[in-house]
Amino acid sequence: MELKLRKAVKSDMYSVLELIKELAIFENEPEAVSISEQTLIDDGFGEKPAFKVFVAELENKIVGMALFYERYSTWKGKSIHLEDLIVQNNHRGKGIGLSLYTKVLKYAHVNQFKRVAWEVLDWNKVAIDFYKSTGAKVFDLWRVAQIDEISITKYLQNLKSN
Amino acid sequence: MELKLRKAVKSDMYSVLELIKELAIFENEPEAVSISEQTLIDDGFGEKPAFKVFVAELENKIVGMALFYERYSTWKGKSIHLEDLIVQNNHRGKGIGLSLYTKVLKYAHVNQFKRVAWEVLDWNKVAIDFYKSTGAKVFDLWRVAQIDEISITKYLQNLKSN
Repeated sequence: MELKLRKAVKSDMYSVLELIKELAIFENEPEAVSISEQTLIDDGFGEKPAFKVFVAELENKIVGMALFYERYSTWKGKSIHLEDLIVQNNHRGKGIGLSLYTKVLKYAHVNQFKRVAWEVLDWNKVAIDFYKSTGAKVFDLWRVAQIDEISITKYLQNLKSN
Repeated sequence: MELKLRKAVKSDMYSVLELIKELAIFENEPEAVSISEQTLIDDGFGEKPAFKVFVAELENKIVGMALFYERYSTWKGKSIHLEDLIVQNNHRGKGIGLSLYTKVLKYAHVNQFKRVAWEVLDWNKVAIDFYKSTGAKVFDLWRVAQIDEISITKYLQNLKSN
């Protein structure tokens, strides 16, 4: 079976969302996905696309994807964030993840980005070992912090009432 | 002394770079800053600005800044990344950091972003406690991974020679 990698188009967003949901289950957070196919289409294919996607196809069926966008490092400059790198469970071990990862690094290289960053779960040792084998660094000291829109609203309301 | 917060302009990038360097020293990586004032101007004020900055002024002198840009969550949608929140060492403890943080959250709220994310060093307990007190979550299980342009080039060259 020949693996084909290509840029995603609007009509791929259904399959992309299926992969996003599959990853959320793998990460033990199946309820966390509130995004819709239409939102992915609106955000990814409008005048100012918020992300880019490469999809991996086997026999014209999407079996994996890499979703990424630009970030900015105040130490280095323009960089890429690889938000998701997902391969369907029943197609793992065939080098599809490696091909997608390499395609994103090539994109970064050709477009002269200063680095590529992503996040990985600390118990995912297979992934961490793979990333390190390619020359990536995995930082133990940094923690990811997030505040969601509901908590932002509450925080701003509390400020007003004080 | 009255604190003034405003959007940064090109001529602020000298002071912004000074703050970036100060943070790198605080984080024990003074040599890591390879960016220049001109690159910040080119990247932040061109046709497609790569980031936005709010600066904090006391008596017309910049004493702090928050630098942020858009990201994309495949679970939630459009989000903001707060790359740097920096207050000059001799102006800490005056609520300047809090004011800048609040300004970024207001920006996210008004523009309907789904969340705001950032990274924090795990030994910076004061910062972590503050963030949590505002409703933010700090994740213990995620690790930040990065590959820089030199390692990307090496990785791609190795692929070719195999």
